[in-house]
Amino acid sequence: MRVRIDLGYDGGGFHGWARQPGLRTVQGELERALDTVLRVEGSLLTVAGRTDTGVHARGQVAHLDVADAIADVVADAVVDARRGRGADGAGDVLLRRLNGVLDPDLRVRRIGVAPTGFDARFSAVWRRYAYRIADRAEAVDPLRRSHVLVTSQPLDEAAMAAASEALLGEHDFAAFCRKRAGATTIRTLLELGWERQPDGLLVGTVRADAFCHSMVRALVGCLMAVGEGRRDAAWAAGVLAGRQRDPAVSVVRAHGLTLEEVGYPADDELARQAERSRVVRTLG
Amino acid sequence: MRVRIDLGYDGGGFHGWARQPGLRTVQGELERALDTVLRVEGSLLTVAGRTDTGVHARGQVAHLDVADAIADVVADAVVDARRGRGADGAGDVLLRRLNGVLDPDLRVRRIGVAPTGFDARFSAVWRRYAYRIADRAEAVDPLRRSHVLVTSQPLDEAAMAAASEALLGEHDFAAFCRKRAGATTIRTLLELGWERQPDGLLVGTVRADAFCHSMVRALVGCLMAVGEGRRDAAWAAGVLAGRQRDPAVSVVRAHGLTLEEVGYPADDELARQAERSRVVRTLG
Repeated sequence: MRVRIDLGYDGGGFHGWARQPGLRTVQGELERALDTVLRVEGSLLTVAGRTDTGVHARGQVAHLDVADAIADVVADAVVDARRGRGADGAGDVLLRRLNGVLDPDLRVRRIGVAPTGFDARFSAVWRRYAYRIADRAEAVDPLRRSHVLVTSQPLDEAAMAAASEALLGEHDFAAFCRKRAGATTIRTLLELGWERQPDGLLVGTVRADAFCHSMVRALVGCLMAVGEGRRDAAWAAGVLAGRQRDPAVSVVRAHGLTLEEVGYPADDELARQAERSRVVRTLG
Repeated sequence: MRVRIDLGYDGGGFHGWARQPGLRTVQGELERALDTVLRVEGSLLTVAGRTDTGVHARGQVAHLDVADAIADVVADAVVDARRGRGADGAGDVLLRRLNGVLDPDLRVRRIGVAPTGFDARFSAVWRRYAYRIADRAEAVDPLRRSHVLVTSQPLDEAAMAAASEALLGEHDFAAFCRKRAGATTIRTLLELGWERQPDGLLVGTVRADAFCHSMVRALVGCLMAVGEGRRDAAWAAGVLAGRQRDPAVSVVRAHGLTLEEVGYPADDELARQAERSRVVRTLG
């Protein structure tokens, strides 16, 4: 039986998602909590978006395969979409126990039996990130300082939006990726927009089928150079066309970045989508 | 010359607004920063809302009277509404210097020459607070844990809204106030509403001409008892009518509370409003 886990975390206290010996990571903490609560050993999570050190998540999704021996117990302790709520009426026994064990900077928001064919990583059709910037004193809110980048350079969001347009669609994003042997850097950028909120905060939304390493932060760094007026809007398209890491593009700090949501197709498309993703990722 | 200062802070690291020897307070920190930046001694702030330990602010307002000897220098270093921006073209020299001295949990958002008759405390016509509650796992966001109360009791926001209605208007709020000799507890509650946000967060908005000590947190505590179903909606009106601190009403925790905004009348009404407020507050 496969279980879907929706979670959020303040990335400031973690060395990213992926388990690493001796370091506090989201995967490490959550797997340890699952071991404790399920009284098993070696819980192994698969995740939709492997976030780097300092990157936050509100809408992270992971899955866990539960051994047959405890499947019935787990099924009774989680929300089962097919039956409405958890077996105890109030539902969410496992969710409450997990959150009781976890530190407050990591919270499970939902946990339930996954539909057939669901794979947190390969069934996902897109990942949506937000990058938050306060570029004026009025927009700096101490209550949000953990997840908003503060800069003293005022940004021209119209110029950033114009530069963003040229990056949309399917491209080889090698210019914005850290190179990895044998991995494709072709991605489809579905959304890249900049919104000035009423309180003055500038929020960038970046949505793609998938991202290569440091890609969102390199895209934001490139567009901030345009927003500051150091580069014109056409420069971003030129960097993209260069197809290799451009040293003029700086990778912005992690703490402004939050994984907001992961998109999945309808239940009857989950398995087919997982198959498609696996094929695409193995094409070099 | 009087200067108006708009500021925000994460109350978690402060023993409230008011200066206290040996304790880190917002007033203490900001006055010390003003002394440093203005090269004076004994800067004395007047504030719109004296927040308690742990209470946050996004829209706090204070004023400072500047001695004639440095008035010209200060006027050149702040935004002057009569001239558009600060004298250096970019404006806000003093704002940048203050924020350079202050810790990141306290930020000055605007600073400027105050219009004639302005008094941060007495010219204010209302104070608006928000109280944020996550009463379900899905609404618990680690990135907002500094300013959202988490409760495992699901709240019925419709029942809370119904109970809130009976408290609106001018009343003696002694039942929700800590008693203080010679001070009136008559206040006008202008707004008291509950909104369930799309992400599941429950946000209470409380707006009044002024508040007595712990009043917002006692109001929220009373309404949460209704929301949990421990009391019916009529109970809140009964508590109010009792006109004395009711031990059945618990004062909720401070960290869910944020001073969001202070309302002032048009410039030509500032002095008259200050006069009115002073008369009302001295009536026992």
